[in-house]
Amino acid sequence: MLNFRRLIIGRPLRTEEGGHERLPKWKALSIFSSDALSSVGYGPEQIIVTLAIPGMIAYGYFGYATMAVMALLAIVTLSYVQVARANPGGGGSYSIALQNLGETPALIAAASLVADYVLTVAVSVSSGTEALVSAFPSLIGMEVTIDLVVLFLILTIVNLRGVRESSNIFVWPTYFFILGILCMIGTGIYNALTSAGPIIPAESLAKQEVNWIIIVLALRAFSNGCSSMTGIEAISNGIPMFKEPSVNNSIKTTYSMAALLGTMIAGISFLFMHYHLLPVENVTMLSQLAEKIFGRGWAYYYIQLTTMLILYLAANTAYNGLPPLLSIMARDSYVPRYLGEKGERLGYSNGILFLSLVSAALIIIFNGDVEHLISLYAIGVFLSFTIAQSSLVVKWKKEKEQGWIYRTALNSFGAFVTGIVVIVIAITKFAHGAWIVMFFIPAMIYIFKEVHKHYITTADQLRITSEEFIGLLEVSNPKNLIVVPIAGITKIVAETIRYSKSIGGDVRLLYIYTDEEERRKFEEKWERLNLNIPIDVMYSPYRSIVRPILGYVSELEMHRTIYDYITIVIPEFEPAKWWHRLLHNQTGWILRTLLILRENIIVSTLPYHFKE
Amino acid sequence: MLNFRRLIIGRPLRTEEGGHERLPKWKALSIFSSDALSSVGYGPEQIIVTLAIPGMIAYGYFGYATMAVMALLAIVTLSYVQVARANPGGGGSYSIALQNLGETPALIAAASLVADYVLTVAVSVSSGTEALVSAFPSLIGMEVTIDLVVLFLILTIVNLRGVRESSNIFVWPTYFFILGILCMIGTGIYNALTSAGPIIPAESLAKQEVNWIIIVLALRAFSNGCSSMTGIEAISNGIPMFKEPSVNNSIKTTYSMAALLGTMIAGISFLFMHYHLLPVENVTMLSQLAEKIFGRGWAYYYIQLTTMLILYLAANTAYNGLPPLLSIMARDSYVPRYLGEKGERLGYSNGILFLSLVSAALIIIFNGDVEHLISLYAIGVFLSFTIAQSSLVVKWKKEKEQGWIYRTALNSFGAFVTGIVVIVIAITKFAHGAWIVMFFIPAMIYIFKEVHKHYITTADQLRITSEEFIGLLEVSNPKNLIVVPIAGITKIVAETIRYSKSIGGDVRLLYIYTDEEERRKFEEKWERLNLNIPIDVMYSPYRSIVRPILGYVSELEMHRTIYDYITIVIPEFEPAKWWHRLLHNQTGWILRTLLILRENIIVSTLPYHFKE
Repeated sequence: MLNFRRLIIGRPLRTEEGGHERLPKWKALSIFSSDALSSVGYGPEQIIVTLAIPGMIAYGYFGYATMAVMALLAIVTLSYVQVARANPGGGGSYSIALQNLGETPALIAAASLVADYVLTVAVSVSSGTEALVSAFPSLIGMEVTIDLVVLFLILTIVNLRGVRESSNIFVWPTYFFILGILCMIGTGIYNALTSAGPIIPAESLAKQEVNWIIIVLALRAFSNGCSSMTGIEAISNGIPMFKEPSVNNSIKTTYSMAALLGTMIAGISFLFMHYHLLPVENVTMLSQLAEKIFGRGWAYYYIQLTTMLILYLAANTAYNGLPPLLSIMARDSYVPRYLGEKGERLGYSNGILFLSLVSAALIIIFNGDVEHLISLYAIGVFLSFTIAQSSLVVKWKKEKEQGWIYRTALNSFGAFVTGIVVIVIAITKFAHGAWIVMFFIPAMIYIFKEVHKHYITTADQLRITSEEFIGLLEVSNPKNLIVVPIAGITKIVAETIRYSKSIGGDVRLLYIYTDEEERRKFEEKWERLNLNIPIDVMYSPYRSIVRPILGYVSELEMHRTIYDYITIVIPEFEPAKWWHRLLHNQTGWILRTLLILRENIIVSTLPYHFKE
Repeated sequence: MLNFRRLIIGRPLRTEEGGHERLPKWKALSIFSSDALSSVGYGPEQIIVTLAIPGMIAYGYFGYATMAVMALLAIVTLSYVQVARANPGGGGSYSIALQNLGETPALIAAASLVADYVLTVAVSVSSGTEALVSAFPSLIGMEVTIDLVVLFLILTIVNLRGVRESSNIFVWPTYFFILGILCMIGTGIYNALTSAGPIIPAESLAKQEVNWIIIVLALRAFSNGCSSMTGIEAISNGIPMFKEPSVNNSIKTTYSMAALLGTMIAGISFLFMHYHLLPVENVTMLSQLAEKIFGRGWAYYYIQLTTMLILYLAANTAYNGLPPLLSIMARDSYVPRYLGEKGERLGYSNGILFLSLVSAALIIIFNGDVEHLISLYAIGVFLSFTIAQSSLVVKWKKEKEQGWIYRTALNSFGAFVTGIVVIVIAITKFAHGAWIVMFFIPAMIYIFKEVHKHYITTADQLRITSEEFIGLLEVSNPKNLIVVPIAGITKIVAETIRYSKSIGGDVRLLYIYTDEEERRKFEEKWERLNLNIPIDVMYSPYRSIVRPILGYVSELEMHRTIYDYITIVIPEFEPAKWWHRLLHNQTGWILRTLLILRENIIVSTLPYHFKE
């Protein structure tokens, strides 16, 4: 068991070995940007899906929606590098909001981020599988199984092994993907420019007149397109993982990422319009595009496989984002403390497992259907964008450092724009699943606050001053009553009584019988022993042993006047072979478990090991 | 929860209330004979099924096979009432073989009986369901579900409630069934005698010449027919449940049962031949016969429903047979002791549950298909018949009481005949499943012996003389080392130290830290307290708390010279609300569980109840 674990996870790391796990820029770009970059795999498609509705002529709005998304990308990038600058400790929107806006906005941001990360994993893994299935249609129907294999056998294990390993495995596919997409875009544009037909055919520009339905459609298309921007925040949550100077490195990485993302979205959207591609069941539009440009040759499969890989890696981004966020929240007592504990390999193992389990649940519930999941996606991201930037506005105004006017203006504009996006998404996508996020975010905030309250009251109840501590130990020597339930006269009973007499206090034995004859024999033997220990003999009319003992203890508790403690000594048989355990009833175990629930009853377990 | 249990099972009964649960003859006949009588529902059919093979003309051997079965029934009955006479304590073949032949034959008998009882439940329940499905074909396909409902929601619950109740529920259907079958036979014979055609048509007598295949077929038909005789032994295992004089009452009941069984087998077999019935898928032959005689009117449904009921009741016979047998074996230490414990309602609850679970497993594995199960059936019964009668032969010879020569002759003949039947069944049905029984019987015997050995060695290891007992308590006062793992300076730590100081012995604290800063703070506070208690401070490089404690304890164990006991005091948080438990790691629980496995380490659990 242990060796299997060693094989999968690796040897445990000492706390001191933690320092080495920092990333250079080129690796960090790959690790943190795979989420953002991979969204070109589904972002533009999500816009067209909304517009290509039977009975409507709306394809022509595709270009506008794409341009709006690109503009938003620029604003978010510019204003978001400020987050990194303001908050080098990581934790992103949550930390920055906690410092500047207070608890509730911070928890809104945190809840949004938790929702976002979980959805990132679910959406990216299932999109990756879709890319795979587009290339190999014989896999249709096995999507959920593939998703879960990737989730548990690859992502979870790699992350439990630790960050540095993950970077080595995860660094190349991102660059392969970027290379492939840029080559495809280049080839596509060259073809477009040299082809006989129009660069953009008329049907790609056709649009009916604007009316309310078209406005809603266009806004919804824009909302869907915003999913391309998820992942931008990953870097600001992971600054402590960059090599020093970590803030500068992270900002440079953010710019590189935004530039790459913008280029790819623009290129792909242009080519979609050039070829007038439309959504088709079971084949992604990126797959259609690759097939148009390269035919179904090795270049096509290269695009599909690197797309699949980068989408799976995008899920990995969340593993680099959520566990550190949870650990910060655990330190602040908003989530269970053990979510902040570092595992054997110095990763936040419990946070990693939490993320895998919740994402798996989402994938199973939605049956691996990305469409449904994307509805839930962007709202959380933009909510956290808005909160982060509002926090910065407060911060800049408060601190009034050099350049604060430019920064305040930039972040105010950013907050305003992303806030508008939140409202647009919430309205246009409400019925499509945004309501789920809008239900879960308040629910999570409620849970965070209740957890916090519990830790605070627990700490209050545990707190003790030095004087109280010393006082408690100095009060007159406490008196202890030791109760030993016995079932006969055996070696184990002798051992138990011997131990009970060795600890200070008055010893009382308790003998419970269910059969008169048995009791007669016991008393005969007992009298021969002639021990000077008080014994209570009780009849159990219903043949249970546990219930009379519990009753006896309750009785003692009610009448105790002179004793400070009641200790019950229970022997525990340790059989020599595992199956021997099946031959004994579990009275000892049941008794122990039930007694521990009683207040002020101390349960002492004395093991007795059988030799054969 | 408890109230629901009360509703289903009834109030618990005091041990003293046990005496009332005895049965008068007319009720005992119904309870103990339903197994044997119900076998007319499948016994004759099983003979024909074997003979009606395409390409063979063997129907004519049906009459012979039936007569052989009837002759065997007479022999078994006569020789088996001796078992009751010789062994009024119940336990049947097992007890009588243990007294007269020794351990191994007794365990062969016991294993056969266990197999037999389990198969009785499985076969009877599924046959009852077949009778139901014959009458209501819309239920086809739901057989296994119906079987399990009957098994758990009716049989198990009624038996957990106790014997007396079961007799009241179970007594009438047997008589209704007997009445129905006798009326049907009467009407059938009357029709046969008054009809124009031959009483037995030529095709019912047609048989091809004897050759090896025919001999094997006929023997196999006879083997199948022997399944009609299962259940005869039920009475001899349940003698203590009869009203006094229990032996005489049981013998009279055995005769009544055999007479009824013989009459019904003869009558039904005759009518099968008169109408020349043949097996049909999904319709039992008894159902065909009832339809021939009564048409599909109320009389037909009466026969089907009473057949169904008596088959279910037959399963109940096993509940009156196996749990008492297991309790006798538990007393003799061949099966886990708790199988002999009386439950709240004075039934052997654990034995009842064991029987239900194993039978359910059989029904599920064989998908409720009776055919397959009957192959496994008769061999165990006849094995136990043979052993019981061989035991009696030994007994009569040893005791030489009045009439011993007649009895020895009778039981020798009985043992010889049933022994032959065992061999015939083992050979002719080997490939049809008898091999399973022949594998399980030795396997069970091995288990019985291993269990016995375990209880004997356990008892040996626990045994202590009065002198040793007193000696153990008198040796010089044992010294106790008390180890208290602490995680900080809190109220709970103060309480734990206070308790530890109250029990005699040297107290040592153990502080484990994972973080240097944390340790510094702790030591600062600790020094201010200025307590005179030795403390060990340990660094845990891998951040686990449990492993260093286990290592520390191992170290102590190896070097202990002056201490007789090492007691570890572990506080146990008891949160005020259930979900608070999710917010704390389970270190205390894990530590406790792992430490108890260590030899000579006593674990004391001090509960600390939070108020909010």
